[in-house]
Amino acid sequence: MTNRIGLFGFGVVGQGYYEIAKNDRPSLLPETIVVQNKNKERPHSLQLSFDPKDILNTPHDIGIELISDPIQAYDYVSSLLKSGKKVISANKKMLAAHLPELLELEKSYGGSLLYEASAAAGIPIITCLDCHFAGDHISKLQGILNGSSNYILSRLFQDDLSLSDAVKLAQEKGFAEADPTLDINGSDVSSKLTILSLHAFGRYIPENEILTIGVQHVHAEDVALAKSLGLKIKLIATVQRSQDGLSMYILPALVGESDPLFLVENEYNAAKVTSHNLGEQFFQGKGAGSLPTGASVYADLTKAIKGYAYSYDKLQGAKIKREKPLTASLEVIVSADTADALAPLIGQATIHQAQERYWSICTLATEDLIKHLPAIEANNVSIIALNGSVRQERILDSIQKLENVHLG
Amino acid sequence: MTNRIGLFGFGVVGQGYYEIAKNDRPSLLPETIVVQNKNKERPHSLQLSFDPKDILNTPHDIGIELISDPIQAYDYVSSLLKSGKKVISANKKMLAAHLPELLELEKSYGGSLLYEASAAAGIPIITCLDCHFAGDHISKLQGILNGSSNYILSRLFQDDLSLSDAVKLAQEKGFAEADPTLDINGSDVSSKLTILSLHAFGRYIPENEILTIGVQHVHAEDVALAKSLGLKIKLIATVQRSQDGLSMYILPALVGESDPLFLVENEYNAAKVTSHNLGEQFFQGKGAGSLPTGASVYADLTKAIKGYAYSYDKLQGAKIKREKPLTASLEVIVSADTADALAPLIGQATIHQAQERYWSICTLATEDLIKHLPAIEANNVSIIALNGSVRQERILDSIQKLENVHLG
Repeated sequence: MTNRIGLFGFGVVGQGYYEIAKNDRPSLLPETIVVQNKNKERPHSLQLSFDPKDILNTPHDIGIELISDPIQAYDYVSSLLKSGKKVISANKKMLAAHLPELLELEKSYGGSLLYEASAAAGIPIITCLDCHFAGDHISKLQGILNGSSNYILSRLFQDDLSLSDAVKLAQEKGFAEADPTLDINGSDVSSKLTILSLHAFGRYIPENEILTIGVQHVHAEDVALAKSLGLKIKLIATVQRSQDGLSMYILPALVGESDPLFLVENEYNAAKVTSHNLGEQFFQGKGAGSLPTGASVYADLTKAIKGYAYSYDKLQGAKIKREKPLTASLEVIVSADTADALAPLIGQATIHQAQERYWSICTLATEDLIKHLPAIEANNVSIIALNGSVRQERILDSIQKLENVHLG
Repeated sequence: MTNRIGLFGFGVVGQGYYEIAKNDRPSLLPETIVVQNKNKERPHSLQLSFDPKDILNTPHDIGIELISDPIQAYDYVSSLLKSGKKVISANKKMLAAHLPELLELEKSYGGSLLYEASAAAGIPIITCLDCHFAGDHISKLQGILNGSSNYILSRLFQDDLSLSDAVKLAQEKGFAEADPTLDINGSDVSSKLTILSLHAFGRYIPENEILTIGVQHVHAEDVALAKSLGLKIKLIATVQRSQDGLSMYILPALVGESDPLFLVENEYNAAKVTSHNLGEQFFQGKGAGSLPTGASVYADLTKAIKGYAYSYDKLQGAKIKREKPLTASLEVIVSADTADALAPLIGQATIHQAQERYWSICTLATEDLIKHLPAIEANNVSIIALNGSVRQERILDSIQKLENVHLG
């Protein structure tokens, strides 16, 4: 049976899928490709449509949505699901915002929705969470979920680049968007964490409820401090389950060499899942790029054709409720150019001076950090989680030594 | 719909599956359990059968085969498939030997056969290879596939235990069989590699064609040498694809700290898959134990009920042919108690003396190593692959230093 496939969008991911299908099974190429921009140069000599109705109002079996605008993406995906179609999407922002409604549409109209490429690009983490943890109880999920942030951190650590130079390089390599804000401020990660948590825990926490600090405030002195401790800084997304619910937070964290996340470099992503039956499972793979992301779309396509659909076992058939995360206490290193920038955040904790910066090691509640986010942003305050990797005394000692180096 | 489930065997893995089902969905507990040994004490107060016909000749929908005898296992699994049943097996020896026939039975009679627990226990590597690499071209697969060997190596490196003490400890912890030979001589790994290669490459290499050296000859001086180089020794299974076919080999190898396999300790397993579209994917999880292995059986059960079957995409619909691996050239460190034990193996390569042992660094063909296996076994010759991790000169230098330590 031939499947009539409609594709929305022909950017980096769409082209990756297209190239894979062309080389593997031309019958899985799209019959119709709808794009928005009539003037954009296109790499293939293809017949393109500019009218979404060419897919939505024309008999297609499968719709693949790979555009960047989440509002339009929701229109297309929900229309297709209302026609009972098989749909594939990679739009993390849209999915994180609308999964509750989309799942209802899937159920009501008998279609299916797959979206492996929306989180951790090439890693089959959604499929694994969905079908390999049956009867298991996941207690923790931790990951590196943004390829361009990780690439930037690798450049800071390996090549001593400045943050702005590293961002430029990530853009040149195609790992960061033209406007890299969503990448470096971690917003992209919170969408992914919302999606993964639904599969891992059967709970839906909208992304705007999650404490999210990206790599935008990581300072050269943070890098020097981590190095002096034999550690690295990674942008770590964490979900931890307790009896009362989930705590969730995304922020740069110190990682030690015995942690498999320590070895995740460049555009790679990773997820570490701790569960009762399986212990610690670890997945690592490319988290950005045309072919890795296109490969997940293509795998979804072959799965959709075979009738595969997510089972959402952890929901146990319940309707999705919007929830808030629990407050968590985080042990962090806070630093800024002025003591005044730290004071409102850290309460009674001591401030240390080193390398013309002001430092404090203290325990902060995610709830309070969320309240202070505008000030953190305005004052370029760096917040790095200790992540259980090292004792406070050792860090203080290293900060003092940074100071000696500078002042001595 | 209720599924009538029949279970063969109630050992470590069977009990793991049973416990998971009992806690999660009692409807997925077996209706019938057939065991062999009437006198064995059983941990649950269950009604057991001793007659396989209670499953084979009685209407069951799903058969789960978790016994150790591969011949009997083949009888049960093939009978069930001939009745068009859904079947789950964890019997790596049986599967590695009989997958070609079993796949034919699956096709002819419309049943299905899943066996995630047969390789790397808790890691969903078979499912991932089967459904996430559609349209991709895997060039290399490398893994740590035996939990007890890896546990033993961790004890040699972390606790300075002797090989025999480490084996005893692995048995006490339940990671090694009562007769640990299949674990420590790597034979268990070759079964797994045969199974994984079918899914990763669409090629069937019977396990007896694969060069297989386990951890049985790893010497305390090998451990000292690796440590002095900042490396570890892991039992690595490798499949490498070239235009002409697959080269495959299993032997202890030096691993450096930038390799994710470096961090795989204790009973954990791992697989590293290199492919055109996805780059390097890495999977790590528990490779032994009642719950991790039982969890893979349970995941298979829930997948089987949903109608999931392996697609064997890489076979592209072709019938399975038995093939031989290509010969590969391996750069190795060979050592033994006498120079005479080395001489027939290493040709013209130089022999060095250190710590009352004789060493040589040379390149050997897998084909030749297979021929010399009886002598390697008889003379307790240690063979460690360099695995691209370090230059010969540095190793020679370290061997000389071992010598100095000893003689100085």
